[in-house]
Amino acid sequence: MRASGRATDEMRPIEMIPGFAKHAEGSCLVKFGDTHVLVTATFEERGPSWLRDSGKGWITAEYGMLPRATHGRVAREAAKGKQTGRTQEIQRLIGRALRAVVDLTQLNEKQIRIDCDVIQADGGTRTASISGAYVALHQCFDWMVREGHLAALPFTDSIAAVSCGIVDGRAVLDLDYVEDSSAHTDANFVLTGKGGIVEIQGTAEESPFSEEEFLRLLRLARMGCDAIGRAQKAAIEKAK
Amino acid sequence: MRASGRATDEMRPIEMIPGFAKHAEGSCLVKFGDTHVLVTATFEERGPSWLRDSGKGWITAEYGMLPRATHGRVAREAAKGKQTGRTQEIQRLIGRALRAVVDLTQLNEKQIRIDCDVIQADGGTRTASISGAYVALHQCFDWMVREGHLAALPFTDSIAAVSCGIVDGRAVLDLDYVEDSSAHTDANFVLTGKGGIVEIQGTAEESPFSEEEFLRLLRLARMGCDAIGRAQKAAIEKAK
Amino acid sequence: MRASGRATDEMRPIEMIPGFAKHAEGSCLVKFGDTHVLVTATFEERGPSWLRDSGKGWITAEYGMLPRATHGRVAREAAKGKQTGRTQEIQRLIGRALRAVVDLTQLNEKQIRIDCDVIQADGGTRTASISGAYVALHQCFDWMVREGHLAALPFTDSIAAVSCGIVDGRAVLDLDYVEDSSAHTDANFVLTGKGGIVEIQGTAEESPFSEEEFLRLLRLARMGCDAIGRAQKAAIEKAK
Amino acid sequence: MRASGRATDEMRPIEMIPGFAKHAEGSCLVKFGDTHVLVTATFEERGPSWLRDSGKGWITAEYGMLPRATHGRVAREAAKGKQTGRTQEIQRLIGRALRAVVDLTQLNEKQIRIDCDVIQADGGTRTASISGAYVALHQCFDWMVREGHLAALPFTDSIAAVSCGIVDGRAVLDLDYVEDSSAHTDANFVLTGKGGIVEIQGTAEESPFSEEEFLRLLRLARMGCDAIGRAQKAAIEKAK
Amino acid sequence: MRASGRATDEMRPIEMIPGFAKHAEGSCLVKFGDTHVLVTATFEERGPSWLRDSGKGWITAEYGMLPRATHGRVAREAAKGKQTGRTQEIQRLIGRALRAVVDLTQLNEKQIRIDCDVIQADGGTRTASISGAYVALHQCFDWMVREGHLAALPFTDSIAAVSCGIVDGRAVLDLDYVEDSSAHTDANFVLTGKGGIVEIQGTAEESPFSEEEFLRLLRLARMGCDAIGRAQKAAIEKAK
Amino acid sequence: MRASGRATDEMRPIEMIPGFAKHAEGSCLVKFGDTHVLVTATFEERGPSWLRDSGKGWITAEYGMLPRATHGRVAREAAKGKQTGRTQEIQRLIGRALRAVVDLTQLNEKQIRIDCDVIQADGGTRTASISGAYVALHQCFDWMVREGHLAALPFTDSIAAVSCGIVDGRAVLDLDYVEDSSAHTDANFVLTGKGGIVEIQGTAEESPFSEEEFLRLLRLARMGCDAIGRAQKAAIEKAK
Repeated sequence: MRASGRATDEMRPIEMIPGFAKHAEGSCLVKFGDTHVLVTATFEERGPSWLRDSGKGWITAEYGMLPRATHGRVAREAAKGKQTGRTQEIQRLIGRALRAVVDLTQLNEKQIRIDCDVIQADGGTRTASISGAYVALHQCFDWMVREGHLAALPFTDSIAAVSCGIVDGRAVLDLDYVEDSSAHTDANFVLTGKGGIVEIQGTAEESPFSEEEFLRLLRLARMGCDAIGRAQKAAIEKAK
Repeated sequence: MRASGRATDEMRPIEMIPGFAKHAEGSCLVKFGDTHVLVTATFEERGPSWLRDSGKGWITAEYGMLPRATHGRVAREAAKGKQTGRTQEIQRLIGRALRAVVDLTQLNEKQIRIDCDVIQADGGTRTASISGAYVALHQCFDWMVREGHLAALPFTDSIAAVSCGIVDGRAVLDLDYVEDSSAHTDANFVLTGKGGIVEIQGTAEESPFSEEEFLRLLRLARMGCDAIGRAQKAAIEKAK
Repeated sequence: MRASGRATDEMRPIEMIPGFAKHAEGSCLVKFGDTHVLVTATFEERGPSWLRDSGKGWITAEYGMLPRATHGRVAREAAKGKQTGRTQEIQRLIGRALRAVVDLTQLNEKQIRIDCDVIQADGGTRTASISGAYVALHQCFDWMVREGHLAALPFTDSIAAVSCGIVDGRAVLDLDYVEDSSAHTDANFVLTGKGGIVEIQGTAEESPFSEEEFLRLLRLARMGCDAIGRAQKAAIEKAK
Repeated sequence: MRASGRATDEMRPIEMIPGFAKHAEGSCLVKFGDTHVLVTATFEERGPSWLRDSGKGWITAEYGMLPRATHGRVAREAAKGKQTGRTQEIQRLIGRALRAVVDLTQLNEKQIRIDCDVIQADGGTRTASISGAYVALHQCFDWMVREGHLAALPFTDSIAAVSCGIVDGRAVLDLDYVEDSSAHTDANFVLTGKGGIVEIQGTAEESPFSEEEFLRLLRLARMGCDAIGRAQKAAIEKAK
Repeated sequence: MRASGRATDEMRPIEMIPGFAKHAEGSCLVKFGDTHVLVTATFEERGPSWLRDSGKGWITAEYGMLPRATHGRVAREAAKGKQTGRTQEIQRLIGRALRAVVDLTQLNEKQIRIDCDVIQADGGTRTASISGAYVALHQCFDWMVREGHLAALPFTDSIAAVSCGIVDGRAVLDLDYVEDSSAHTDANFVLTGKGGIVEIQGTAEESPFSEEEFLRLLRLARMGCDAIGRAQKAAIEKAK
Repeated sequence: MRASGRATDEMRPIEMIPGFAKHAEGSCLVKFGDTHVLVTATFEERGPSWLRDSGKGWITAEYGMLPRATHGRVAREAAKGKQTGRTQEIQRLIGRALRAVVDLTQLNEKQIRIDCDVIQADGGTRTASISGAYVALHQCFDWMVREGHLAALPFTDSIAAVSCGIVDGRAVLDLDYVEDSSAHTDANFVLTGKGGIVEIQGTAEESPFSEEEFLRLLRLARMGCDAIGRAQKAAIEKAK
């Protein structure tokens, strides 16, 4: 049994509150246990300049963490005057993941800007962000269809993400902070509803891992993403 | 009657949720209507270097806004690489206001860092921040007493803040965003529980205001701060 | 009697030298005792982009201090790579104050940029800046009229500013550095020639102040601004 | 056949010139075809402050690209005043990869700083960097042993990295720039000499990939890393 | 005759007001015609860290220009967040020039920080800065001797600087802005009282210059520096 | 004899490899002994905005150093977030030098951007950069002629640069790092093929130098630039 009492293939409780942000075209407060991320989707009339006259639109993401989202306080990036490498890595990942399931040629050179702000952190903030962003983006696309900015939803698939790792020699699903800190191997998976892989990031923390271990993690990730997918579907329904 | 249906001397619904942030020594989610601010208080072993060996401690504040807290998206300060003048003005005000009701000589060279992050904005974010910060700071001091960092609560008074303004020729209490945008005069008041004035900021938006108008605003502010004070007391009780 | 020998309602000697800067469209070297600020007004063909096609113009201000204007040297902001919160607060105040007495719709989308640079500091640099800026701006408007950029002077009133405070239990006018450092309450007032209030900033330094104390400060400020107004008038006459 | 004429499982010509940099404790100019990276390893007496008194040392990496290493010129990061997200992502990866095969507890709180500077780019700069860094680090450790800073080489394994991808429906090894731009899926593998996996980064460029495809890429990566490993061994021999 | 009516070997009127800044240990307002620079010298207890335990002290300089010192307004460096290359070049030159005539080993690890701020510019601001800085530094050293920080004045020589150029085919001394803009060749000379050369910077603006032309400029510079030297001596006398 | 065994008027071995960078329109790897600089010339369709509609083009330069080009590691400017004053001074010099021998009116508002990156440093990096940049620029102009961007080569002369100094009382040519560090006087000369002077920068390191000493350095510089000129000519021939 894990410290949290969960089974090795058990997700933390997933909660998704669509439309949480009053002003945004799309939004979702996503909770994976004690990890809470507020995701908003902002519609922007103008895409990036390098897409001008291409017909294609764009989806980009920014990521941030409230200074006291974590156990010890993390310095405010706005006060330091720059974003850390970790922040940039995460926001690039989020944008890439969403673009992988959207047909950008349908976006009429519009841009959607996703903001993922971690209100509270307990491991897995990047995977919760991607999972919640899919819901916020969906709500934003629904709004764009209603407003006449889109002819139809441009999704080619749905998307969800989860982290897995090898903790105390066992492969476990959906690491919380304590597990993440002691994991021997740590991997993030971004998977589509149809089972395709969009992104894999596996990292050995102290000693290398084997192909077999890695495949065990992938199997867990499929189970986790299925559960997340169900929560996403319910949230999207509710938002209508 | 005001656009919102409120009487001229009526506050928006006030809600204060102490202990909202799992990790912080003190915290409060404060709502003035649709303005929602998450305030955390972080205990820091070491105060600023210029207080070393003075025995005095310090209270400092930082302020931020989620990019889509507002109607249109505001660029993320961390991404731009600097805080706006408005942000700096507000965070200096918050720190000053709190220090005015604390006996810093009792803090043993410790520092409390207050973070005010606006989750949703509808006018009055700086006054909501100060009002919620008092609750978060109180909870943090309670924790410090329990942990032996303080002999007793170092407060010399309680503190609350509210904005008032002259809208359509009438003095009104607790401006929401629409009122704030059309106010002819706009003033922020920071008042203590005993009725002392800690900070006054009055600004004529288009044409100057008179002493009489200003005193009318001050009177409304006293009413508003009384109501906030009651909410603070209830939240502090609940946090124990 | 005050340390400086002044009466409680006595300003420091005021000196205003219009046209001090050879190259600027308007300028004024203003002295409140040992506080010396060089203010220039620069005419700019293009206002800010967000006013395009509105017909309105703009007045903006920047503020700086020579590193050794003060007793101890203050780090050069250009070398540090950013302006302090204090600097930003002051320059926002100066711009706001000037805009309050100008009909911006008459400016034909032009912008006036005010630069206030403190050559020597002895308290009250922001109020001296505003007071001198009125003279520099006036000279700039005179030039704009002569050059055909303006049909008439767009002022709706004149403006002056002064600081007051409670020092050793007494309300005093026009604080110098020593008084400012020991003041119990410190307030800046920006008043128009006709007696309107444009900006009030009152701050309790250590313990709160009362409404009565505050009104006493306001009364002193009126006296001070009258004196400044006379010096402004003389300087403007002289500049013609 | 690939555009370059290579077989699907064929690396570009690998060249490794150890000791290329006159001044550095360790260095290697590594070439994967037209991708040329100069790697240096700098010995630093003091590790990061957060390791003080832990006995552990550290290995960190920085990455840069000459502005005209690429087909079109890329803006100089020093002139822009910040490193891109891509740069930060890569340098974090390089440091992590090297630390995974070193027993940091043997480093006596010393730090090795790896600099990877791309002289010419034709795809695969990050994997060439890691592969060359192993040689430079080895040379640096040899020097440290000779100078008495280390009792023995602290390596627990060797390390190499290569990129693979699915191009025109076929899995191919060691993508050059043209292949990288048109790859449907792109993955970087960091593998140890003993066959362990240290890092996997797989990204779907336009449409998701399958588990089977992914495993095919991993198999190619093992072949590539074997070839790189032989070149590393020869270079290390030569450097002695 | 030159546009200004001066002879080719004639300096603009030189004025030097020592002790102009109330707070600084040394200061001088220097005027070369319409070029006015306020120079201050600040005594600092601690020199740069890389001189610790060497016994040597240091002299460093910073340079700035008020935004409207020039004909058109120049953007404030503090607002832009960085100093231009020109500014850095000038302040490095000023520091180097002063250090060349001071025996740094006598400074007991103290540092003097020179601030040169251009109040009004009409060509030759860097040479006026150096010339005025010598006076400010002298006054600061006098203060240090009086305060016991120095046993004796550590000067090994005096120093002055002037610009010369070839304008309309003629070599002329002490270029004003109009001449500087149209000069074919432009050179700055920093010379000691005993006739030694400390710094030469000659630049061809459009076409190269000859050795002969260059020597003609050097001869003029000697005449100019003699005149400046006399003004410096008088100012230093007066400051005592 | 010098430490390196060279005669006082002897250059280090000069090597120039044109076309070293695969992607650039022009390039040259230049070596002055152990000083190695890679120079590239990039053709840009659009010149700086302040030249629009003037018909004139522009040549600008950037300079950088690999962190471990030097004996001790120098912090990466991209990581620090700004370029040092030294870097800016050098890149301004390089641009100015090249523009002095090009008729900018023939450039059709195009811009050439020169990048000089020091791979290894042993003194004289700025003069090697200028000397190599002439070759890279020549190759770029040849390309522009072939591509129809230029009617003819716009050079008005050739250009080369070298440093000289007074070391141990003797004037010597082409200082290496050791000589540069101990030089009493250090001067950089930029000379044209026809013998004109484009730039002179002479600096006394510890004590002033005399006119006679300076002229001796200039004579050496002429000899050095002749040798560099021959190497440039050969490289340009080879590049055709």
